[in-house]
Amino acid sequence: MKNISYIATKPYCTSTGFQASNPATGETIEGSFANNTVEHVGIACAAAEEAFVKYSRTSDKARAEFLQEIATQIENRKDSIVARAMLETGLPEMRLAGEVGRTCGQLRMFASTLDEGSWVRAVIDTANPERTPLPKPDVRLTTAPMGPVVVFGASNFPLAFSTAGGDTASALAAGCPVIVKAHGSHPGTAILVAEAINEAIHICEMPAGVFSILSSDISRIGVDMVKDLRVSAVGFTGSLGGGRALFDLCKQRSTPIPFYGELGSTNPVFLLPETLSTKTEALAQEFVASMNMGCGQFCTNPGILVALKGDKLNEFIELSKQALANVAPQTMLSAGIHSAYESGAEKMQAAKGVEVVATGAKGGINQAESLIVKVSADTWLENPDLEHEVFGPFNLIVECDTPDQMLKIVQRMYGHLTATLHASENDLLQSSALVDKLRDKVGRIILNNWPTGVEVCQAMQHGGPYPAATFSATSVGGRAIDRWVRPVAYQNMTDSLLPDTLKNSNPLGILRLVDGEYTRKAW
Amino acid sequence: MKNISYIATKPYCTSTGFQASNPATGETIEGSFANNTVEHVGIACAAAEEAFVKYSRTSDKARAEFLQEIATQIENRKDSIVARAMLETGLPEMRLAGEVGRTCGQLRMFASTLDEGSWVRAVIDTANPERTPLPKPDVRLTTAPMGPVVVFGASNFPLAFSTAGGDTASALAAGCPVIVKAHGSHPGTAILVAEAINEAIHICEMPAGVFSILSSDISRIGVDMVKDLRVSAVGFTGSLGGGRALFDLCKQRSTPIPFYGELGSTNPVFLLPETLSTKTEALAQEFVASMNMGCGQFCTNPGILVALKGDKLNEFIELSKQALANVAPQTMLSAGIHSAYESGAEKMQAAKGVEVVATGAKGGINQAESLIVKVSADTWLENPDLEHEVFGPFNLIVECDTPDQMLKIVQRMYGHLTATLHASENDLLQSSALVDKLRDKVGRIILNNWPTGVEVCQAMQHGGPYPAATFSATSVGGRAIDRWVRPVAYQNMTDSLLPDTLKNSNPLGILRLVDGEYTRKAW
Repeated sequence: MKNISYIATKPYCTSTGFQASNPATGETIEGSFANNTVEHVGIACAAAEEAFVKYSRTSDKARAEFLQEIATQIENRKDSIVARAMLETGLPEMRLAGEVGRTCGQLRMFASTLDEGSWVRAVIDTANPERTPLPKPDVRLTTAPMGPVVVFGASNFPLAFSTAGGDTASALAAGCPVIVKAHGSHPGTAILVAEAINEAIHICEMPAGVFSILSSDISRIGVDMVKDLRVSAVGFTGSLGGGRALFDLCKQRSTPIPFYGELGSTNPVFLLPETLSTKTEALAQEFVASMNMGCGQFCTNPGILVALKGDKLNEFIELSKQALANVAPQTMLSAGIHSAYESGAEKMQAAKGVEVVATGAKGGINQAESLIVKVSADTWLENPDLEHEVFGPFNLIVECDTPDQMLKIVQRMYGHLTATLHASENDLLQSSALVDKLRDKVGRIILNNWPTGVEVCQAMQHGGPYPAATFSATSVGGRAIDRWVRPVAYQNMTDSLLPDTLKNSNPLGILRLVDGEYTRKAW
Repeated sequence: MKNISYIATKPYCTSTGFQASNPATGETIEGSFANNTVEHVGIACAAAEEAFVKYSRTSDKARAEFLQEIATQIENRKDSIVARAMLETGLPEMRLAGEVGRTCGQLRMFASTLDEGSWVRAVIDTANPERTPLPKPDVRLTTAPMGPVVVFGASNFPLAFSTAGGDTASALAAGCPVIVKAHGSHPGTAILVAEAINEAIHICEMPAGVFSILSSDISRIGVDMVKDLRVSAVGFTGSLGGGRALFDLCKQRSTPIPFYGELGSTNPVFLLPETLSTKTEALAQEFVASMNMGCGQFCTNPGILVALKGDKLNEFIELSKQALANVAPQTMLSAGIHSAYESGAEKMQAAKGVEVVATGAKGGINQAESLIVKVSADTWLENPDLEHEVFGPFNLIVECDTPDQMLKIVQRMYGHLTATLHASENDLLQSSALVDKLRDKVGRIILNNWPTGVEVCQAMQHGGPYPAATFSATSVGGRAIDRWVRPVAYQNMTDSLLPDTLKNSNPLGILRLVDGEYTRKAW
């Protein structure tokens, strides 16, 4: 692999590169990557700003074809992308192959959103010159893309949340050029996907600056990217510490910009009594599978489990312990994440009242030892630190004395991406207040499924009250496109100069709110 | 008027009150108002937090009735509200009577939004247990209210952007309790409107803490309000300086919250050549009327006018000068605003290359002397300070040598609420690039109307790129409600525990996106 990065499709070389390392072996991987600087940030931003003029005026149809072509080009490179990603992330082949599928699925979902076209939520209020005391003007509302967007590649999804992941796909769909900060752990994977995007730019004759990627093994470049005044919005998935620092920078600019950051979540799971009694073994199996999926490195990993104290919970814990013994050790995404996991898990174990109930097998280099601990609800309620995320295959079981304590836990909780209930019809009759209260705390409430495995669909919500996310929006699913546009109204505008979404003839055939009525009609 | 403020419907008295003064006379007005402190902020926030539990679970229908009742109660008090507002703001009776109408119209518009119900944008993706490799879960998306909202009363709309104004109406519609910071210039008006809201709370049996109002003649209380961790979002209309300070506080909190601030706009108007030639006199009359409307104290006041240098512009300026001579002097909203206007206008006159072309009549105490100045496009492009808002009846005419300079002005512009074009069909054929470029700079593009007089309708956009606003949303019109809700998804949830918006039977009959199809169907 060459020493290369892409700035607006022009390969850019530096003499001082950095190299990725294989978390499974600790060895350096072939290929070196540019340590880009603020100068390259400037080049990429200038190119994006120039591209925005043309790209933001392309038709939805043209952008849909572009997204389809990116998906095709990624699929063309699937084998080399998966092979490189395996080396850089330690994730298994099947998972990464699945992630290629999800990435291309996301690109195609946004393509179909554009093809359908109603996502802009056009509104038309027609004129009434006869109205008194003042005539009513014709006012029409649509959206416009915000401008160049910076996307940070995520460590835990080297494809679906990185170079051509959900943030990039939705921003490109919205009409915004994208500048990606490649994640330092998987720069080679990033460059291979960037090549696919650049090939699509070439084939679809899009302006070169519509996509750039920058890399560095120091975090300074991310700071330079969000501070560049040509950048209009930022997409980020990562840690609370790093994400909050970038959020603060975005808000301190002379022109503040939206920072769509997903900053971590502990995703509490509630096991209600009847279900715990009747499905003890299945729940234990599913629980251990969910908390170990992808070595616990999913945004929606269940990090807290809440249930009533008693024999059935003891049995569940014993069965979980047995199940955990059968989980093969897994390599974490990087040495840094592995050591953060170890220190996080250690801190939890050292906390007052926390008791270890099960540990997974010890593995090799950078492999995580799964860990399940337990604590009483009273202790949990006293110590807010116990709600913090330990990124990896870790779970804290909170033992409640009464159903009322479960409610108290929900009331004390801060924001999470998800909350999960395992409950029978009877359980729900007893605990409808729980479903109700959870609405104020999370982005997605799940009944009798597990939180891992986020469905990419129009109804998905991936985001939640702070610190789960810094925004009231979703970074997964159809609505993710809304983050990169702003509303624009036209008053009394001549039909020929209106965007197609607002023309009388409704050339796109989209659903519009016309004088209070939802319709696809033209006139 | 009693020394009184409302915290959750409980009258709260202090011994040290402050008094309002009449800008038209400089005299103190009868009645004294509580100087609330951080302690009262705490009481109001605790009441709002408690009210949220119940109020956020009320039906859309119940909240629609509540908003209707508030409108009725305001109308019941119309005479006393208008009389008090005249004393406190110097605005004329007709304008204030119109503003009562607009305020009630806004409340009723949101009531009808709730009655129709589709505003929540419900999405349903049904399950497919047969899908491979993984079954597809049932996922459904709706919205939930964010929590208690703080609204700052605006100086320039004592009714429509204050106590029961657009921010309050939309937040209450969304299901959020509201705590209003009464504007220090019109506390008596604020309390009269608060009484109307409290009467509606009583009649509709809403929880008391759903509305509180706090007052103080020092700005510290606003700081305490936005810093209280029980507050979930803030609505603000005011100056860039004060607004940015509050924005910063909202973002620096341990839990950052949205700050929906409208911070000022110069609302550029472009007169294109053919229209300037053929409608010179009408344009001059309309221009002078628009820039003096409400003594130039509208958010959408035209503060910059751009046209090609030449005889026709000279004629337009001469006619504007004559029209300005006929405008009766108007009292500004407060002594503070008047002195800020005078110093702002003075600063503009003192800027290099700026020439005074017309001044209005000198008036009495706190009355503004209207002012039109001009400058060359070259000078304007060199001095970014010339784009700043002078709040009041002020306009800066920018004389261009070429149509290309008009485009350059648009490219250099920062964000504004509106941009206006006066253009014939021919003009537009020559200048379609202008319409196109303006899309990236403003929230609303207006053709052959004037920016003042914001229509309250579903298609309205009142907001624009920073510093016009701190958000990609609108504070006027139907979509203003979107600011106070966040998306919540339910996965695999039992029908009886779903919100009505998501139930299979579609009991509200709303439009939903079901498996990719917009429909009102039930099943």
